[in-house]
Amino acid sequence: MEVVHIGRLVASVTDDNNKIKTMQDILFDFISKYVSLTEDEKNALLSLDLFHSVKKGTILLNEGQKTQDNFFVLKGCIRVYYIIDGEEKTTAFYTEMVGLTPHCVRKKVPSDYFISCVEDCILLISNTDMSSKVNSKFPKFDAMCRMLSEELLVKQQIDFDEFKTSSPEKRYLNLLQKRPDLIQRVPQHQLASYLGIKPQSLSRLRARILEKSKD
Amino acid sequence: MEVVHIGRLVASVTDDNNKIKTMQDILFDFISKYVSLTEDEKNALLSLDLFHSVKKGTILLNEGQKTQDNFFVLKGCIRVYYIIDGEEKTTAFYTEMVGLTPHCVRKKVPSDYFISCVEDCILLISNTDMSSKVNSKFPKFDAMCRMLSEELLVKQQIDFDEFKTSSPEKRYLNLLQKRPDLIQRVPQHQLASYLGIKPQSLSRLRARILEKSKD
Repeated sequence: MEVVHIGRLVASVTDDNNKIKTMQDILFDFISKYVSLTEDEKNALLSLDLFHSVKKGTILLNEGQKTQDNFFVLKGCIRVYYIIDGEEKTTAFYTEMVGLTPHCVRKKVPSDYFISCVEDCILLISNTDMSSKVNSKFPKFDAMCRMLSEELLVKQQIDFDEFKTSSPEKRYLNLLQKRPDLIQRVPQHQLASYLGIKPQSLSRLRARILEKSKD
Repeated sequence: MEVVHIGRLVASVTDDNNKIKTMQDILFDFISKYVSLTEDEKNALLSLDLFHSVKKGTILLNEGQKTQDNFFVLKGCIRVYYIIDGEEKTTAFYTEMVGLTPHCVRKKVPSDYFISCVEDCILLISNTDMSSKVNSKFPKFDAMCRMLSEELLVKQQIDFDEFKTSSPEKRYLNLLQKRPDLIQRVPQHQLASYLGIKPQSLSRLRARILEKSKD
C-alpha cells in the first residue's frame, strides 16, 4: 500500500465560505462537536502522525490480510468490497468525516473483504494499540470514540433496515436524498453493486426516475 | 403492553445438563464472560427490578411511539418489523442473550417500527436514565456495555454485508448454519420477510435445498 505520511498543515481544502482550512482544522472542528480538547490533548493527537495521503486506486486492505488499522476519511472516498465467485460486490462507501474499523480488526482474523480508495484521499490511520494508549491517557477521547461508535451503530441499523425494506428503486431514491454526492463520485457499476442490482438495471431505473420527474 | 414484573428467583429454566437455573443465574453467567461483579454490584443490578415476563404476541413498541426502553432477551424471541404500504416487513429477530436498543431511543424520535414478542419471553427492560445512573456508579457496567455495543456493531456489519452479498438461497443457508433454532421458532411468513423474499419463494427454496441434500 502506497501511503504517504503528511505534515499537519500541508494538506488543505477550501470550505463553503472559501476559507482555506487545513486537515488539522477540519479534524478539530469535527471533534469539537463531541468534546472540547485542551491544547495538550490536541498536541497529543497530532503527535501520533495520523494524517496520510493516499492515491486513488490504492488498496488499503486485502482479503486474507490481517490488520490493526482503523481508517477515518478526512477527504475522499473509500470503498469496501468482497470478491465472490470472481465478481466484485461493493457493500459500503465511506466519505468525509466517517470512520471505519474493519470487522477483522475487532475479531482478530484475516479480512474477508478489500478496502480501496475510490478517489485520492486524506485519511487518519490509527491502530488499536495506539487508540487504547491515547484513550487511557485522555478519557475524553474514549468518551468521543464511544459516542461515535453509538452513532455508527444507529446509522448502520437504519441503513440495514432501509436496505431490507426497500425496493431497488426506493434504495436509489434514498441515496439520492441522503448522499447525492456519492452518485457523482463513484463508478456506476460500483454503485449498482452497492444497491444490490445489475448495472443495466441501474441504468433502466435512472431512466425511469428521470421520465417520472418530467411528468 | 402487558408486562409482568417478576421476582429474581421465580423464573427458571433447565440447562443442557438438566440443572435448574434461575434467570438471575443466567444473567450473571452471561455478565461474567465480560466483567466479574462483586456481591454489591450484583445487588445493585438486582435492585433495579429489570426482570419482566411478557406474553407471546405482546407489542413492546408501536410505530410512532416514543420510548427510553432497552430490551435484553433472557428467554424467548422478539421481532422488529415495519409496516410499509400495509405490509409487514420483518428486519430482525432477537433471541437469548441478545440486546436491542431501538434506534429511536438514541435519536429521541418516535419509533418507525414495531417490536413484538414471537414467544412468551423473559426480558430485562431498562431505560437510558437507569443505565447511565448505574454505569456512572459502577464503571464496570459501563465497560461491559461498551464491549457489548462493539460486539453488536461487528455482528451487525457482518450480517449486513452477508445480506447484501448473498442470494436468497445463500441467506437461507447462512441462517440454517448460524441460527438453526430460528427456523423452527418463527412463522414462515415472518422468516420469508426477514430473508427479503415472498413466502412462496421460501417454500420453493426449501424444497430445492431438500432435493439437493438427497442427491
